[in-house]
This record gives sequence, structure tokens and C-alpha cells, in this order.
Amino acid sequence: MKSDDTIAAIATAPGRGAVSVVRVSGPDAWRVAGALTGRTLHDADAGRFFRADFGDDGLVLVFKGPRSYTGEDVVEFQGHGGSVAPRRTLEKCLASGARLARRGEFTLRAFLNGKLDLSAAEAVIDLVDAKTDRAADDAFARLGGALSRPFEDLYAEALALSSAYEHLLDVDESEAPEGYLEGLSARAAALRGKIDARLATAHEGKLLREGALVVLAGAPNAGKSSLMNALLGERRAIVSETAGTTRDFLEEWADFGGWPVRLVDTAGLRAAEDAVEREGVERAKDLMARADLVVALDCDVPGALRIHAKCDLDGLPGVSSKTGAGVAELKAEIARRLAGASSRADESGADVTSRQRELLQTAREALETRGGDAVLAANGMRRAAEALGSILGKTYSEDLLDALFSRFCVGK
Amino acid sequence: MKSDDTIAAIATAPGRGAVSVVRVSGPDAWRVAGALTGRTLHDADAGRFFRADFGDDGLVLVFKGPRSYTGEDVVEFQGHGGSVAPRRTLEKCLASGARLARRGEFTLRAFLNGKLDLSAAEAVIDLVDAKTDRAADDAFARLGGALSRPFEDLYAEALALSSAYEHLLDVDESEAPEGYLEGLSARAAALRGKIDARLATAHEGKLLREGALVVLAGAPNAGKSSLMNALLGERRAIVSETAGTTRDFLEEWADFGGWPVRLVDTAGLRAAEDAVEREGVERAKDLMARADLVVALDCDVPGALRIHAKCDLDGLPGVSSKTGAGVAELKAEIARRLAGASSRADESGADVTSRQRELLQTAREALETRGGDAVLAANGMRRAAEALGSILGKTYSEDLLDALFSRFCVGK
Repeated sequence: MKSDDTIAAIATAPGRGAVSVVRVSGPDAWRVAGALTGRTLHDADAGRFFRADFGDDGLVLVFKGPRSYTGEDVVEFQGHGGSVAPRRTLEKCLASGARLARRGEFTLRAFLNGKLDLSAAEAVIDLVDAKTDRAADDAFARLGGALSRPFEDLYAEALALSSAYEHLLDVDESEAPEGYLEGLSARAAALRGKIDARLATAHEGKLLREGALVVLAGAPNAGKSSLMNALLGERRAIVSETAGTTRDFLEEWADFGGWPVRLVDTAGLRAAEDAVEREGVERAKDLMARADLVVALDCDVPGALRIHAKCDLDGLPGVSSKTGAGVAELKAEIARRLAGASSRADESGADVTSRQRELLQTAREALETRGGDAVLAANGMRRAAEALGSILGKTYSEDLLDALFSRFCVGK
Repeated sequence: MKSDDTIAAIATAPGRGAVSVVRVSGPDAWRVAGALTGRTLHDADAGRFFRADFGDDGLVLVFKGPRSYTGEDVVEFQGHGGSVAPRRTLEKCLASGARLARRGEFTLRAFLNGKLDLSAAEAVIDLVDAKTDRAADDAFARLGGALSRPFEDLYAEALALSSAYEHLLDVDESEAPEGYLEGLSARAAALRGKIDARLATAHEGKLLREGALVVLAGAPNAGKSSLMNALLGERRAIVSETAGTTRDFLEEWADFGGWPVRLVDTAGLRAAEDAVEREGVERAKDLMARADLVVALDCDVPGALRIHAKCDLDGLPGVSSKTGAGVAELKAEIARRLAGASSRADESGADVTSRQRELLQTAREALETRGGDAVLAANGMRRAAEALGSILGKTYSEDLLDALFSRFCVGK
């Protein structure tokens, strides 16, 4: 599984910054560093850094595999930021025998070298992409293996049950001890229960990673734009006294109690007067159908959180964008509703990803009871074990790895 | 001069990236690292890095002052990229006693601790902001002290001459050896010549740092937009067969032979038909007046580089955006004209900055000959020495430091 080529990439974000990092990994990493610094690296250099000129001037960090991020020999050049300095260092690495890394290829190599399992690997990019503290906590917990152990347990139990069923097929069923098959069925049922509990966290995980779509709905002039501004804490939308000002959608990302929220202000829901507005109303309805939560301003929308807006005008309980009354409470209520139904399977502090959900569902479907037939049960349990193993990367296909690591940025 | 507080900042560019760096410098830097990692640092840790959890997980780099960038104790946390992870690490540093660094404050401290002079310090930010290799080379040379030695020489000579003149005032002028005053005058004249030579590089330096304004001028439909696209190597402007398509300015940055060029396509220079277009023509004239180079398409503009465009139509020598003929030659000619008159004073490979130019001019003016009067000469030489010393930071004011380091990014 050892890679025979050496990869390099700029590991820091592009743009204006004080410092940049260019990362090199592979069998020739130390030779590349030697070419750039004019200094031959020795094992004693591992774990140290030294100042050097490598086109840019800065620090060189030296890692000896397997004690590195990728498990291979790794060198990092920490130089000046900006656009030219890191590019030139990278170009020198490429001229010295490295090739440009693909997206996520450093983490892919870490996985292939057994430094982390797939459930931790996919947490790496979720941490980089986290928009809120809660999302970062979730990714960081998974990166630390919070889901690895539960998945290992599920996988081990499925494997054990699978071989027990297989064993049963090899012998005469009547030779099995009294109640043996029933015992296996009970364990299979328990396994199904654990998978269901894990699946229940998928919604929350999806919200954390992809953000929750929260749509403000209401009649024209109901105060949607003003409320959006009040919720965002700054004036972004154009607020007007004339109905129908917000014809297209305004959307902004916000952090409501740790939930990354894509807040959308829809066009006024009224009889459209022209084609453009009619189109807007159709799109508003479509958005509401896809929303994780609809906040309905003084109107009835099934499943929505209904509020009374402009409460400063009549003194009734509600929200006022003008005075700010009830705005904080509304934010908290939105966060509460988003957390809502979802409850974690345990105190792992982490929720399953879309990929994991799909594999869990595959396992779950393979375990549907089939009337106690040992052949069918053995077959189903084997497929369940395979799916559970795929979550951790015990078994994987090239396609699976491609799909997972293509979400990464170059340099990770 | 020792700082008594500890500063912290995110040192990498904001945005999506694999790796981020949070930098801490000051007397409490090691204590902050201890608070974040639960590990007490010792002198033996300096020059090493170790893996740790500090909210994020990653590497900790430990520097013992004065062997650090700032000359103080420094710790760097290299963690995951993205927006949340580095922010949280920074917040922990601030909660552990560091305060947020101001722009350029790390480099300011490096200067105050004698790690680099002011002419090198200002090269630091020019390197980060460099848009082309040539600009980066210039900054990198200055960072390495390419101008420090020449400025030290000018300063030392001005100081020597200043004390010689002062000495002459203390004694009876007739006691001075034959031709002594004349000898000093000759040395002062030589010093003026050296300052002039250094000043001659200011234009090139300004172009490298701020970019050269190159304006395409010509009648409507002369082919300016097409030429701009051809020069940029990709189609950006809207190209139309109708005259007057480009009413507002299109501008793009390009790298012509290492020169950062701000390429501007002006509105058609014709009798304007409406107010908006008239306004555009006025602005075009203003741009041409300020341009470092005007490329005139089949029209006469004083001082401009005149070219024949659309040469594919008539076969005359010129440039064709359609076939690409002559485009590479035009780029090279633009680069040649920009380098043009400027010639470096020596092989230092670096050009003076605006700040250095102003101080050189102050020194130059102080050295204007005043008919051999020793009092005036002594006075002028002292002021020249002060100005030359300011270039290196031998003498400086708070205002000067504020102005210089406010150009920096936070974290540098």
C-alpha cells in the first residue's frame, strides 16, 4: 500500500496572511527538502525545526514516517504568506521531484497507512468546513475517534453473528444447543436497535455539516426583511414601506445557538402582479417545502413556527424588529426546534455523516427479519458486516475513496 | 524596550485551508502554551515541535527568545484550517492572558528587539503583498539586507562628515590643514551622487510594489477590449461589434515580464452622446494622464506606445487579437518600457520604497551646496545623517512606526 511517489501542496488558505505552509509527503520528501535547503536531513532532525532559505526564508519541519500525519516521511516549509512566496516554494518542490497533491491526498495516505479510519478521515474536512462551534465540536469529536469505537463495536458484533450463523449452516441445525438460533436472533435484534439509535443522529449531523435552511414566510409587508435584519444583528436587506420590496431571495448565514443557519427571506406571498414576481412566489413555496424550519409571520403554514411580528404596534406577545423585543427568544426557539427531535445515541458527542447514514441503512435493511431462516439470516448478517466495515474503511472501493476525498481541499 | 505584554494572532490567511497557524509572542507565551496544552515548557523544548491537543489538535512549535522571529519567547500552534479551529485557538490564547496583536506588531517587536532594521521590516510586508516574481525578488532581497548595507554606508559617511564639520567649527578654520574643507566638500558631493543613484531606483520600486498603470486608448471599435482579452490570455471584457460597448472601465491585474500591471481598457474616445458616456471620456483622459504607460491603438497620444491593431485585416505590421500575432511581442515591449529609464544604483537587486525615497530626498535637500560655509554645511550634514538614519530605524518616531506597520496584516 506504500505510495511510491512524493506529493506536495500549499496547505494554508490562499490570500493575504503572515505565514504559509507548503507540505511534502512521500519517500522523496527529505530529498526534496535537501534540494531546497542545501542540507541533508538525518533521522535526528525529525521532530525539530530549523531556519533555512528555500527560495523563501522560514522554518523547515521534519517528520520521519511513520510518526507523521500521513505515516510517510513529511517535510513542511513554513514561509511568508501572500500569493507569490508559497507558490514559488511549491514550484521548487515540484521541480525537485514531487508532484502536485490531489484533493485530500495527504489524509488519504494517512488512511491508507492506518493512521486514522475513514470515519475519522471524513471528520478532518468537516472540521475545516465547520461554520459554528457546535459543528466544529462534532467534527473534532469524530476526528478523535468518538464514532470509531461505536462503529468498531457494531462491526465486531455483526462479524461475530455472521460467523455464528455460518457455523450453524455447516452443522446440522438440530445439533445446535437448545435456543441457540433464538439467541442469535435476539442479538441480531439488539444490533438492529443500536443501528437505529445511531441513525437517529443523522439529521442533526446533516444540519451541523450542511446547515439548516430556515425560511421566513409571510404576506407582503409582514416584516420579513426587517426581521431578517434583526435576526442577523445588522441591516442587510433593503427595507421599504412599500409592499413587495424583496422580490428575489436574500439569504445569509448565521449562527443560532451553534447551529449554522441559512436564513432566507422569501418574496411576499401574494397574488403576483407580474411574471418575475410570480416566479419568485413559486420559488418561495419550493424553498418552504425544503426548509428545515419555516418561521411564519402572522400566517398559517403547516409545521411552521408561527410568530406575531411588529408586536410594538399592538402590544400583543410577539417579536418586534423595531424595538428588538423577542428577537433573542426567537433565535433560541429556532435553535431549540432545530435540535428538536434529534437525540444522540450516546454521549459520543458526535453525529453520523451522510455516508455513514447510507451504510447504516444498508446494514439495517440487510438485517430485516426473515422468519428465522438461518440461510437468509447468515446472508443478511454478512452483508450487514460488510456495510458496517465500510464505514471504518475495513473494506472500501476506489470509487468510495474518490468520492470521500474529493470533498477535501488540496494540501489536506 | 522589552514588551511586558504577550500578543497573539492568527498568522495564516482566512478561508478554507488544510492548516492554520496561531502565533503568540511575549513574556507569557510559554505560560499560554502551558495553559492550552497542559504541559509545562522547558528550555529543551525550544527548536522542537510536539503534537498536542489545544482545543484543536496539531503541532506546537516552541522558540526561546532571543532566538525567535520577534526576539521574545514565541509559541506557534499549527492546527486545522477553516474559520472555526484557528479562531478557537486564538480565543483560548486570549483567555489565557495574551492580547490580540495589532497589525504588524510581531515584526514591530522584531525591529524593537534589533532582529531586523526598518528597511528590512518594510520588505516583510512587501513580500506578502508581492503580485509577481520580480516584486517578490525585490522584497526578498531587501528582507535579506540588500539595502541595509548601502544605507548603513551612506549613514556612516554622513555621520563621519557631520562630525568632521562640527570639529571644524570647534577649532579655528585656519588651523585646519590645507584643502581640508575642500576635501570635505568633495566627499559631500560624492555622498550626494550616491544618494541620487539610489533615488533613481525609486520609480522601479514603486512600480513593483504598487503595480504599473497601463491604459489602452483608442477610438471606439479600435479593438481595445479584444486586445485586453488577448493580453490577459482569456476573455473577460464583453466584446461587441457595436461601437461604445465598453462604457465603464474594465481593469485586470496581469504579470508582464515580472511587472505587476494594472491593465485598463478605457471607454471609447469619441464625441460623447450622453452624460454617462461623457463622464467616461473624462475619466479616461484622467487615467491616461496618470498612466505609467499608454498603449495607443491607431491614434496619436503624446508619450504613448503606438500600435497598429487588427493587423490581420490589412496585413500591415502590428498586433492582431484575432490571430494572436504580435501579442507576445507587445507584452515584452510593455515590460521593456516599464523597466525603461530606471537603472539600479548597483547590483543590490533591490529598489527603494516610497518611505525611503522621501527620506533620501530629505537628506539630498539638506546637502544642497551652500557656498562652502562650514556652519551651514555642518548643519545640513547633521540633518542628512538624521534622515539616512531614519531609513534604517536608527532614529524613529512613534508616528513613523505607526505609519509603517499599519500597512501590515495582523499576525505578521
